[in-house]
Amino acid sequence: MPDERELFQQIGQAAARMKPDLITLRRLLHQHPELGWLEFQTAAHVCATLEDLGYQVRTGQEAISGEDRFGVPSREVLEAAWERARSAGAPLRWLETMRGGYTGVVADLDTGKPGMLVAFRFDLDALPVHEAVDAGHLPASQGWLSRIPGAMHACGHDGHLSIGLALARLAVELAPSLAGRIRLIFQPAEEGVRGALAMTRACAGVDRLVCIHIGLGVPSGQVIGGAVGFLATREYRASFKGQAAHAGLEPEVGRSALLAAAQAALALHTLAQYAGHEVRVNVGILRGGVATSIVPPEAELLYRIRADDNSVIEALDQRAHAAVLGAAATYGCHVELEIIGRAGSEDSHPELAALAADLAQSVPGVKSTSHHHPFGASEDATHLMQQVHRQGGQATYIMLGADLAAGHHNERFDFDENSLAIGLELLGKLLVRLLLDSQFKR
Amino acid sequence: MPDERELFQQIGQAAARMKPDLITLRRLLHQHPELGWLEFQTAAHVCATLEDLGYQVRTGQEAISGEDRFGVPSREVLEAAWERARSAGAPLRWLETMRGGYTGVVADLDTGKPGMLVAFRFDLDALPVHEAVDAGHLPASQGWLSRIPGAMHACGHDGHLSIGLALARLAVELAPSLAGRIRLIFQPAEEGVRGALAMTRACAGVDRLVCIHIGLGVPSGQVIGGAVGFLATREYRASFKGQAAHAGLEPEVGRSALLAAAQAALALHTLAQYAGHEVRVNVGILRGGVATSIVPPEAELLYRIRADDNSVIEALDQRAHAAVLGAAATYGCHVELEIIGRAGSEDSHPELAALAADLAQSVPGVKSTSHHHPFGASEDATHLMQQVHRQGGQATYIMLGADLAAGHHNERFDFDENSLAIGLELLGKLLVRLLLDSQFKR
Amino acid sequence: MPDERELFQQIGQAAARMKPDLITLRRLLHQHPELGWLEFQTAAHVCATLEDLGYQVRTGQEAISGEDRFGVPSREVLEAAWERARSAGAPLRWLETMRGGYTGVVADLDTGKPGMLVAFRFDLDALPVHEAVDAGHLPASQGWLSRIPGAMHACGHDGHLSIGLALARLAVELAPSLAGRIRLIFQPAEEGVRGALAMTRACAGVDRLVCIHIGLGVPSGQVIGGAVGFLATREYRASFKGQAAHAGLEPEVGRSALLAAAQAALALHTLAQYAGHEVRVNVGILRGGVATSIVPPEAELLYRIRADDNSVIEALDQRAHAAVLGAAATYGCHVELEIIGRAGSEDSHPELAALAADLAQSVPGVKSTSHHHPFGASEDATHLMQQVHRQGGQATYIMLGADLAAGHHNERFDFDENSLAIGLELLGKLLVRLLLDSQFKR
Amino acid sequence: MPDERELFQQIGQAAARMKPDLITLRRLLHQHPELGWLEFQTAAHVCATLEDLGYQVRTGQEAISGEDRFGVPSREVLEAAWERARSAGAPLRWLETMRGGYTGVVADLDTGKPGMLVAFRFDLDALPVHEAVDAGHLPASQGWLSRIPGAMHACGHDGHLSIGLALARLAVELAPSLAGRIRLIFQPAEEGVRGALAMTRACAGVDRLVCIHIGLGVPSGQVIGGAVGFLATREYRASFKGQAAHAGLEPEVGRSALLAAAQAALALHTLAQYAGHEVRVNVGILRGGVATSIVPPEAELLYRIRADDNSVIEALDQRAHAAVLGAAATYGCHVELEIIGRAGSEDSHPELAALAADLAQSVPGVKSTSHHHPFGASEDATHLMQQVHRQGGQATYIMLGADLAAGHHNERFDFDENSLAIGLELLGKLLVRLLLDSQFKR
Repeated sequence: MPDERELFQQIGQAAARMKPDLITLRRLLHQHPELGWLEFQTAAHVCATLEDLGYQVRTGQEAISGEDRFGVPSREVLEAAWERARSAGAPLRWLETMRGGYTGVVADLDTGKPGMLVAFRFDLDALPVHEAVDAGHLPASQGWLSRIPGAMHACGHDGHLSIGLALARLAVELAPSLAGRIRLIFQPAEEGVRGALAMTRACAGVDRLVCIHIGLGVPSGQVIGGAVGFLATREYRASFKGQAAHAGLEPEVGRSALLAAAQAALALHTLAQYAGHEVRVNVGILRGGVATSIVPPEAELLYRIRADDNSVIEALDQRAHAAVLGAAATYGCHVELEIIGRAGSEDSHPELAALAADLAQSVPGVKSTSHHHPFGASEDATHLMQQVHRQGGQATYIMLGADLAAGHHNERFDFDENSLAIGLELLGKLLVRLLLDSQFKR
Repeated sequence: MPDERELFQQIGQAAARMKPDLITLRRLLHQHPELGWLEFQTAAHVCATLEDLGYQVRTGQEAISGEDRFGVPSREVLEAAWERARSAGAPLRWLETMRGGYTGVVADLDTGKPGMLVAFRFDLDALPVHEAVDAGHLPASQGWLSRIPGAMHACGHDGHLSIGLALARLAVELAPSLAGRIRLIFQPAEEGVRGALAMTRACAGVDRLVCIHIGLGVPSGQVIGGAVGFLATREYRASFKGQAAHAGLEPEVGRSALLAAAQAALALHTLAQYAGHEVRVNVGILRGGVATSIVPPEAELLYRIRADDNSVIEALDQRAHAAVLGAAATYGCHVELEIIGRAGSEDSHPELAALAADLAQSVPGVKSTSHHHPFGASEDATHLMQQVHRQGGQATYIMLGADLAAGHHNERFDFDENSLAIGLELLGKLLVRLLLDSQFKR
Repeated sequence: MPDERELFQQIGQAAARMKPDLITLRRLLHQHPELGWLEFQTAAHVCATLEDLGYQVRTGQEAISGEDRFGVPSREVLEAAWERARSAGAPLRWLETMRGGYTGVVADLDTGKPGMLVAFRFDLDALPVHEAVDAGHLPASQGWLSRIPGAMHACGHDGHLSIGLALARLAVELAPSLAGRIRLIFQPAEEGVRGALAMTRACAGVDRLVCIHIGLGVPSGQVIGGAVGFLATREYRASFKGQAAHAGLEPEVGRSALLAAAQAALALHTLAQYAGHEVRVNVGILRGGVATSIVPPEAELLYRIRADDNSVIEALDQRAHAAVLGAAATYGCHVELEIIGRAGSEDSHPELAALAADLAQSVPGVKSTSHHHPFGASEDATHLMQQVHRQGGQATYIMLGADLAAGHHNERFDFDENSLAIGLELLGKLLVRLLLDSQFKR
Repeated sequence: MPDERELFQQIGQAAARMKPDLITLRRLLHQHPELGWLEFQTAAHVCATLEDLGYQVRTGQEAISGEDRFGVPSREVLEAAWERARSAGAPLRWLETMRGGYTGVVADLDTGKPGMLVAFRFDLDALPVHEAVDAGHLPASQGWLSRIPGAMHACGHDGHLSIGLALARLAVELAPSLAGRIRLIFQPAEEGVRGALAMTRACAGVDRLVCIHIGLGVPSGQVIGGAVGFLATREYRASFKGQAAHAGLEPEVGRSALLAAAQAALALHTLAQYAGHEVRVNVGILRGGVATSIVPPEAELLYRIRADDNSVIEALDQRAHAAVLGAAATYGCHVELEIIGRAGSEDSHPELAALAADLAQSVPGVKSTSHHHPFGASEDATHLMQQVHRQGGQATYIMLGADLAAGHHNERFDFDENSLAIGLELLGKLLVRLLLDSQFKR
């Protein structure tokens, strides 16, 4: 049986060989983006693929804890997406299980030998972005644009999925040399930090958890072993109720929920100054009113706050509440606040992060590595990492460098696809280092 | 042949007899509200009915001037509504002609004898209001609620249509005693003052134009012969373009179109003070943003201004433009303004208004009448009235008193249905007075 | 003894003769404007003049009810103004009595014969306006500009005072032919509707009250017998308290009272739409903050609302309160509201108004008259008029036409001084008509 | 002659001996705060004291470059403050020189032996803060409150001055053992970063520059050798011009500069989010309007932006400009922007900072030291430090730990006065280390 050095060689060759497939699959996925909790087609494809490879697959309510989901779309939207997936030919067996937005997947591969449980986490969802269509945007000029109007993989999750499925294949090849268990977690609704909490259960018993994200400002050729400084985040829906009235005949009777929401939006954006801390406020969506002749009786405002510290976000949260309530009162309206997303701040484990960074140095194409780097944004992977750390395990969040055509969430987002093979090789080597059967160790 | 007195008796009896049918038809129409330019099912029903009665019917591009339409919905919305009408069984022959939002109807009845051309105008469209469903709302407790979610006849146009179709029937009965021509105009998209301009052609050659509206603050038993003081109105869509960015990773790159629109909304509402004039500003709709993690790249704001004077609205319009452009600049955004509705101020003709008021005194149920009354809101019927006055004709806009359960455009709007028969009788008598064959006059 | 016709001739001659003096005195007063409650020099001059003419003069707390004053300046400001008046040589005897802002004057002339008590009311105060100094402004080019920086008679009260003092002189001449009593009321702090309520006592027992105002949009040569449609008004000071903090070191500790006030300003200005009513909202003053490096701990906002109806202003007042409180809460601030001015809506008495208009027709220079005209603004004379009407008397508010160089309260305000003699003659004739000794009547 | 060890002993003894005097002087200064460019009494006292000690003293236009001053008060304010200083008995000889706001002082002491030029910089000005007067505030309970209403040493400059004057005395004692020149720079108008640029000339030829500040969040017993991370800052006055009008009679004619400024304030505060950077925006002062009955024709807004990076502040500055211009346009107003303060970001020199930190370890009362610490706010000392660094010299900004009763700029600000003696001893030792005559070095 091969030792680690030989296995590393084998992994390197596999990554080089699979590189075109990684790119092809990523581009295919790019054409079929699905928003959070609606990843029916994608998740069903993942289930079918992993089952074929020999994994034990769980999805639906076996994988997702219904009451821990945030920001689930309406029943109508869920059904429409489900129907689309069905019409598109997604395997009904898996679809049935996921109906209603239970789109997470947990897949286990057991080597049959005692050892650690090592998990890898990937994210399934896309963003509500209209993809750019001009020739300057590669997916447009090369013909692999999103086929779903108003949805786009504008954060690289298509790349993560491509790596994840390739890793699944590679792990099967490596399994005979390993001891312990491999778990692949495919999480829905990462955008809006809405999905991870509902998959915390998937981390029960996990000894090592490896998450990975492409880009994030890290250039091609650089790998960060473990992100730190995740921004804690909370996300709210504020529903304003005013009073409708004919805007011409009796404007004085109306109470414009739209004006209350508009004022709340401005007020919320004044709250982002905290000395020594990264703080963010974003009113991401505002929708209000029904017709120009009616004083708007209702408005809805979705906002998200972030901070690099749990006590700072707590203080910010209270000020944001006051701002929303005050704005409603200003215009004689009522408002209800509903939390629709939440993640904390959890650093990567220094030991596992260092290991990832060190292994990355041996991967072709990697020019520099670093143990740690501030993430500067939010991720609900922190829920999973926290769970693993609580159990005494180690979790890391690898930042996989990739030059970007435009920033994350932008309509022209695209990444250097050379990173895909690098990511695959790095995860493969981590797997071997963590689970190599002791009899092969020298 | 009967003289006017006998014809008036006949009309009174017909109105009394048709009263239950008027109410039944109104309630049926109430259950099938269609928004502006989407009145496929309603208009097709009108066409079929009038053709059966012997009217010469024009619809589609024969009735509607395509380039003069304001605020036409998107192709997708037009198609979906059209399909719904088709599925509901609306006669395909008429539907085909209206496809794409040409939902106006012009129907002529010729007595064969020379005389004036007298036109009556009714409006077809409903409002984007979710109808109240509790027992306190009569349509709910009696089972004739809107069956179309998010649409409601909340301004009484269902009542107007019911009167209009009954008048069509009555006119056929009266025709042998009359000389000249009768024209019935069924106009789409009155809400948002979007439809009348496209039907101005229907008023070419019209000598007398009679419009009618239920409610409007006039109590049951009262009739106003001719409204004056219509508020001139203009309606705009402001489309703000900012710059999307990941709200966590690089908020400084983003330019929030949502904030620009929010500020524009507040600023617009500060413009409504004009000494000695009725002025209105209403930001009726604001929609912006795509996700809470994205700095909103786009926002759309629909607003409507009104004034009781054409020069005041001109001045107001300029200030509103400045406010919108300034707000966009404030946040580093761009904005485009599109006019989507427009109506002027045109008083009822005093002679025709007086005639209508005088005739109303003979209608059972009418307790008081008045020649004139300020309207206090906007109506695109003013386009048609203006056209008739330009030709030397006379136009009036009758306000038909009816107690209301709640204000116009409110989710609990409902009116006293006794007004329907009053309206029918009044219009019938007006018709006779205007077109009675001279040989029967004494 | 002369009859009315002869007296009218005498008055006409006196007015013509006094015309240059009226203008001279007006220009003198124009150079010495004093703000509300600070009219020490002006009021002392009035007292001395009237006493010399034989009037019984009351001022200070004999004329002013201390607790009914609104918007009295701070003790420092009062003292500084008092000192300035003293330095300027105003008679100390009267000054002493007025100290602390008791600047009203009530002067009685008793004919010794029984009859009605007829009162005339004039206003003493100027405005905080920096007068224009360019040659296009008559007071500048002719050398009679305000000598007090930041204060200006920009509403014509200098003209009213000139008429009032001339009328005092004329009344002494006429007295032997009259029966009853004449009362001249000189009121402080009309601007901001702050002074009249404190002089209500001066109207006890008054049978006829005549108020007069120059300009107001009425052109030269026109006289309105009695204004109606005064806008009821309320005026508030909102004092916001936030939390100071170093804006660089710990911005998160601060709570900006300035932002709260700014938002309140915007929100207040959105409240001015009332169908069928004239409504006004004006945030007239906002002052907040101490330094650019400090989060503003305090801000003060002064606003004024008006409406042509007492119930509308009540409703508006409540909405304005909510707006101010809501804006404070939005930014974590506190706010206190203090009422600093208030007047109601009280129409001129039709009988007295008609009398004034009719008499005006005989005054040279008057080309047209009207019994009534809407005032369209606010006046605290309404407090006095209301008091007289409650007693069964009659009060009117004459609008004395005068072409203006620029609108009231503008830095270029100036009026056609020909109106002064017209005003004097009209008031003199009114006096005679109301108090002519019956033995001289024919 | 003594060696360094002996001189250090001597300095330690002097600091202990002078401790009560340091406190007494600080409290005296605390009672006579003067705002920026108005420090006539304070600066004259400094001049007289230093001249008495044998320093060569320059002030007035010899010390201050007139055209490089920011935010100089109006001539009236300058004169009033100058008069107050004169009335208070400040020596006229120095006062005359400073008239018009030339309140900086540069004082040199030449050892007569060749060597470096070592400068120390202190700041003279106080803040526009109303000092707290309750017993919980030490200056109140102990009777040394500010005697100038509305002005307060709320940032510790009184302590800096006390140290500076004691250092002047100590330097004279030490001079015989030193070689080179000592320069004491007393700078006006540090608050608002308005004064340093005008004193850049005082740094010509300076080899070492030492600045010092008390408190800043560093606790008693800790000393930071050199601050880094100064926030670059820019400070503006935005003057809005609208159009006055009578708010009741013709509100539509007015253009409220107050509303424009209010909106600008809100918009500016939305600009503070920059990933990875400390950014601040503060609208510190807003003043607008003249009376509640007048649409505000003018408003003034003072704001300050800061960033920890020169390119970030440049970008922020441009967005702020756009926000101000956009807000003015929104309300039909004009606006002019005037820069009234400016400072860049300049780190302490690591070598000199390390030296200061190391020497601090030998000072009694110092428990911990650190070479560097982020400042987190702005300081115009950076102008002077930059000048020295450009010349190849070294500059540092010592943060002298002191527990605070309340934050800087707060009305309850006070600091642990034990820090004064520590500061004196540290500066004395630095002086010796930098200028010790080489013949005494061992």
